[in-house]
Amino acid sequence: MGDLEIRPAVADDLPAIVAMLADDPLGASRESPDDLTPYVTAFQRLADDPNQHLVVAAREGRVVGTLQLTIIPGLSRQGATRSIIEGVRVHADERGSGLGTRFMEWAVEESRRQGCQLVQLTSDVSRGDAHRFYERFGFTASHLGFKLQL
Amino acid sequence: MGDLEIRPAVADDLPAIVAMLADDPLGASRESPDDLTPYVTAFQRLADDPNQHLVVAAREGRVVGTLQLTIIPGLSRQGATRSIIEGVRVHADERGSGLGTRFMEWAVEESRRQGCQLVQLTSDVSRGDAHRFYERFGFTASHLGFKLQL
Repeated sequence: MGDLEIRPAVADDLPAIVAMLADDPLGASRESPDDLTPYVTAFQRLADDPNQHLVVAAREGRVVGTLQLTIIPGLSRQGATRSIIEGVRVHADERGSGLGTRFMEWAVEESRRQGCQLVQLTSDVSRGDAHRFYERFGFTASHLGFKLQL
Repeated sequence: MGDLEIRPAVADDLPAIVAMLADDPLGASRESPDDLTPYVTAFQRLADDPNQHLVVAAREGRVVGTLQLTIIPGLSRQGATRSIIEGVRVHADERGSGLGTRFMEWAVEESRRQGCQLVQLTSDVSRGDAHRFYERFGFTASHLGFKLQL
């Protein structure tokens, strides 16, 4: 396979990103790939926030993965800054290609560069394969993740 | 007990906030209440970020609780904005006073006001009482929370 580049997402990447969000057991019922309007609005908000880092992975110019890294300052742990990884998606064609590992390496490196002492993420309890992947990478499943829909 | 007010934290609240962060089974070994320097730096960073809402609860002018609400835009779920609750602490004197519920009500109301569709938080697996509290409030423990120390 050709070279893989991880770079900041641009507006032109949105159709490919949303297609990946929708091509997922949980995302299928949550996303609307035929109407990009809400995604364009959200993309602009992400682009305007210096603590948001939305990236894509591109192989030979084709978008094959996406990840959102958020930098969160805080008081606890002696004023530690933490990062949160959200919205990791890897194109079906790229499963097993090592892109997941490349993404985690990128996220950890960028978190260090931003002065974070902690990287965190939550993963749906149904995603057992993902949990084993994160644990192999060194993450500890030390917390329960609670969500409330408004 | 006197009236309870939830308001944005100011720099003068830092000693009381840090004392609460340290007065906690997990926080005791993580915090440095005798040296506020790192907390002052982190407080300024929070104050400069419009997506960060660090609040305190004050009863008759005395700080008795703290909570950090972070607003996170995103692409998934049709461009949903979510909020994350971090660093919830209630002074030992206030346990059972209803402050935890008041805090959650405040966080949900503020999240709605900020246009969020989802409120989320993670809680250490050892905090069983907190888990039951969050579930009574309507949160679902649908995720595992992974952390990696840098």
